[in-house]
Amino acid sequence: MRTRAAVALEAGKPLQVMEVNLEGPKKGEVLIEVKATGICHTDEFTRSGADPEGLFPCILGHEGAGIVIEVGEGVTTLKPGDHVIPLYTPECRECYSCLSGRTNLCTAIRNTQGKGLMPDGTTRFSMLDGTPIYHYMGCSTFANHTVMPEIALAKVRDDAPFDKICYIGCGVTTGIGAVINTAGVEIGSTAAVFGLGGIGLNVIQGLRMAGADIIIGVDLNDDKAEMAKKFGMTHFVNPSKVDSTVQEIVNLTKRGNDQIGGVDYSFDATGNVKVMRDALECSHRGWGVSVIIGVAPAGAEISTRPFQLVTGRVWKGTAFGGAKGRTDVPKFVDWYMDGKIEIDPMITHTLSLDEINHGFDLMHEGKSIRAVVEF
Amino acid sequence: MRTRAAVALEAGKPLQVMEVNLEGPKKGEVLIEVKATGICHTDEFTRSGADPEGLFPCILGHEGAGIVIEVGEGVTTLKPGDHVIPLYTPECRECYSCLSGRTNLCTAIRNTQGKGLMPDGTTRFSMLDGTPIYHYMGCSTFANHTVMPEIALAKVRDDAPFDKICYIGCGVTTGIGAVINTAGVEIGSTAAVFGLGGIGLNVIQGLRMAGADIIIGVDLNDDKAEMAKKFGMTHFVNPSKVDSTVQEIVNLTKRGNDQIGGVDYSFDATGNVKVMRDALECSHRGWGVSVIIGVAPAGAEISTRPFQLVTGRVWKGTAFGGAKGRTDVPKFVDWYMDGKIEIDPMITHTLSLDEINHGFDLMHEGKSIRAVVEF
Repeated sequence: MRTRAAVALEAGKPLQVMEVNLEGPKKGEVLIEVKATGICHTDEFTRSGADPEGLFPCILGHEGAGIVIEVGEGVTTLKPGDHVIPLYTPECRECYSCLSGRTNLCTAIRNTQGKGLMPDGTTRFSMLDGTPIYHYMGCSTFANHTVMPEIALAKVRDDAPFDKICYIGCGVTTGIGAVINTAGVEIGSTAAVFGLGGIGLNVIQGLRMAGADIIIGVDLNDDKAEMAKKFGMTHFVNPSKVDSTVQEIVNLTKRGNDQIGGVDYSFDATGNVKVMRDALECSHRGWGVSVIIGVAPAGAEISTRPFQLVTGRVWKGTAFGGAKGRTDVPKFVDWYMDGKIEIDPMITHTLSLDEINHGFDLMHEGKSIRAVVEF
Repeated sequence: MRTRAAVALEAGKPLQVMEVNLEGPKKGEVLIEVKATGICHTDEFTRSGADPEGLFPCILGHEGAGIVIEVGEGVTTLKPGDHVIPLYTPECRECYSCLSGRTNLCTAIRNTQGKGLMPDGTTRFSMLDGTPIYHYMGCSTFANHTVMPEIALAKVRDDAPFDKICYIGCGVTTGIGAVINTAGVEIGSTAAVFGLGGIGLNVIQGLRMAGADIIIGVDLNDDKAEMAKKFGMTHFVNPSKVDSTVQEIVNLTKRGNDQIGGVDYSFDATGNVKVMRDALECSHRGWGVSVIIGVAPAGAEISTRPFQLVTGRVWKGTAFGGAKGRTDVPKFVDWYMDGKIEIDPMITHTLSLDEINHGFDLMHEGKSIRAVVEF
């Protein structure tokens, strides 16, 4: 079949909307109609050429929602008409990682996914001249239709709006999941969130859900504070306006007879390795846990004195918020429909596929939290 | 009173054994007769001048065992005749850190201890000419008698031999505690231990106690392997004899249908920041936990790509094995007396106080695991 897609022909160039060929689903695969897709910084990371593993031409997009159109041989858990959210972190429930119960990083199709291929080592997309087009993060949601492995699709309820729940495919789950799955924040905790963009806001609402007492937002842009407050931020620090961000956070968190200070949990949602260090070092001596969420530039390294860890701080990271996609994503959709989590205020722009490059512009200009393409 | 002590008069010089003045215990303090003390790398770190916070003149030593001689005003939990192990990490059971239940890093006397002083801001030791002598890690066990805060003494059973249980005051507890308190190793785990000295061997026996399946020892010195095997090591890697230590460990741990490999837990007992990185990176994608035990040189920093953490590895550290001294040290003594943990083979040399500098020589020459001074 043919479908319309925004194709990244080469690194650093705007996407080009065009007709492409799409083969039907093979064994264990599913054809879906994408109804909506968010535009995420990770798409931009690859589009711009900053991603050393970027492959071109490819169809970007990994934050989608859609409907099953056709299932391939052997597919048993999905049928045409089912509503689904694509998962860049699949959940096969059979590999060593899935069965460990200790990680969401399913390894069943890792090798081919990293090479822009379906599990059989080929692509379903191609240019009209036959040139193969790489898949992206196993999803390629910047297309009106896409083919995905069954294990990389979460079946969700039918009454949830695509243009909102697509955000659960990445940003919402990453931010809230970092709090509840990776950090395991308890009621009454103190926390700091570095970077108040689309991920940071979701970390903040995750902290509110988890019952944190003090939620400190950190951003260079004062304008970010207002929205963050609406999601639960209790204190704001602009690093350009204080001598030491770490010391400021330590001072804000000296409570009761605690003479030491520091947050119980900190989160980096910037991708800046210097900020990651601050996030670690503002966490509490003895038990502070710092979680890296942001994607750093190629080759960048984090560093600190080992004394920071020897005195009890823990440095960890999270991918897709530690969520097991097929199991957890439907719950996140329920939480949204039940009003437990907010998404609507974060979807600041809705575009057509033809306007997709404008969505990237809005991101660069800091004007959008999330721009969503509706098909 | 007067007592005999090995005094570090200045950085980099041999210790000098001499008579010193010792004031009796003040409020909340206890005078003990030191019966035995181990010589640890941390003493050498300070003696050599490498420790930027080292203060001179001081009486080093922090791995002791002894008997209570006299208690100061208000001391209620100890009486003359009690057998005790000095704690460089006290346990006041009242400060914010102790009450958190989340750390062993009691902060009750942290500030004065770091300055070589008793909690009232003065020293009990002085030269015969009256010059104050600094305390060391709150212990100063290289003296026949010392004064310590009540909260920094663990009461232990009377039938345990001082020349063995003194090692529980640092090395044994640090190594085994890193496994059971900080890492929380489960039965069937895989693990790697970098550095097979006095701490590393105790990590290994901790792993054996915890029921680890694979215990990989890593050391540049092949001669260390024999003793490590006796304590439970199952595989040995000499980094100078393989292309990549990380890859070697990954390959050794591909079990069953695990195509990824890597240890569930790794421990650095070297203090080398490059080794700390290897220890992190040989741990398993998704859930590997790497624990820093070693003390790094002043100013040295650890580093890695944040991707290592984002893909599920956890970097942490431990001080005194995460043990709460007054609570846990008596248990460790029981375990030794019950034969659950071995100490005797690690006490390779017993010296008199006058021979203490020879103990440092043995450490430098790699001839001792632990040299103990008996009074």
